[in-house]
Amino acid sequence: MKNPGSYFLSLVKQVEDRGIRYSFESEENLRRLSGTKKHQGVVFDIQEYRYSSVEEILESKTPPLIVILDQIQDPHNLGAIVRTSVGAGANGIIIPKDKSVKVTETVVKVSAGTVFRAKIAIVTNLARTIEELKERGVWVYASDVNGTPIYEEDFTLPTAFVFGNEGEGIRRLVKEKCDRVLTIPMENDIDSLNVSVSVGIVLFEAVRQRRMKRAE
Amino acid sequence: MKNPGSYFLSLVKQVEDRGIRYSFESEENLRRLSGTKKHQGVVFDIQEYRYSSVEEILESKTPPLIVILDQIQDPHNLGAIVRTSVGAGANGIIIPKDKSVKVTETVVKVSAGTVFRAKIAIVTNLARTIEELKERGVWVYASDVNGTPIYEEDFTLPTAFVFGNEGEGIRRLVKEKCDRVLTIPMENDIDSLNVSVSVGIVLFEAVRQRRMKRAE
Repeated sequence: MKNPGSYFLSLVKQVEDRGIRYSFESEENLRRLSGTKKHQGVVFDIQEYRYSSVEEILESKTPPLIVILDQIQDPHNLGAIVRTSVGAGANGIIIPKDKSVKVTETVVKVSAGTVFRAKIAIVTNLARTIEELKERGVWVYASDVNGTPIYEEDFTLPTAFVFGNEGEGIRRLVKEKCDRVLTIPMENDIDSLNVSVSVGIVLFEAVRQRRMKRAE
Repeated sequence: MKNPGSYFLSLVKQVEDRGIRYSFESEENLRRLSGTKKHQGVVFDIQEYRYSSVEEILESKTPPLIVILDQIQDPHNLGAIVRTSVGAGANGIIIPKDKSVKVTETVVKVSAGTVFRAKIAIVTNLARTIEELKERGVWVYASDVNGTPIYEEDFTLPTAFVFGNEGEGIRRLVKEKCDRVLTIPMENDIDSLNVSVSVGIVLFEAVRQRRMKRAE
């Protein structure tokens, strides 16, 4: 931030333009309201995060491009994945109700605020959701080891990618529901990357293929 | 880790095979030696990290694929970038002496140990190093906003990618030395991603192009 002064003036203007109430508070109050010393000088009181339905995610773009996260637990990873998904123009992110990080303050912050432009659905049974997506004509790929190289699949069709958590990968019952296993081809005996990096590589391979197809 | 018992037995065997001295220590000692409660039951006394020279990085692969990081400060980012670079088979990473995170314990851990297989060079003057790389026939791309889409450049030639830090991007004097500016094409008015995600997308686009070329 090169000139915080002008940044704050523009922020105040935007807030006024939208008719949002605001006040200037002491450093002590900012710290108390944000719950951290590492705030950035502004505290915004958001409503509870509004999750989407799988239906809303499916409807928002054709052909769909969907990210499914099987029990990701690190809010930094979820935040980075949300930001990447919004940047890639993906329809949304599906996470399971159990053992998955939800939208927390850290997710909001790491996502650089993009979480409010993302559609995120929470489902009870990920395996069943995958079945439903397949019935709706979506190709569901598990991103894991020993699969087809990502450059050899066609992601211009309706596509969902499943990513597992760092420690355990995708659960067996979830993986079995997928149409196919995909792998980022790697050297030096590396078998996995940070999950947010993997999501970026796979999603933008889909972006590339769809751009090429539109340009044909 | 599904069976820590057998994992530790195999670790002890590997350590014995290599003639490395080892001892079993109390939880208290492990905590003291590792400096954290969040250790994983093993402490390894490494020598000081051995950095490489730019020459060693250039020599290790033809055509070179090099990552240049302009003042990255977060060790989590550097760790994830090291892991991704090793996975992509890049030659190495070049970082400036000033205002850049170096190889710390966090970097080692986040890199999942791949830092010991990576070549990392520290240089005094990044702009001058870029000049030298160009003289050696390497195409140097700045990854930033408002550049050519990454899918429209040829990365099968000797290539180096420069990434800036999250807050400020690439410094002007460094950017000016680059041959061209590259951009990951994004939707929804997103202008940047987490730097480790960007490195993954750009490096694996080079991997894809090189695979396609070899397959021709």
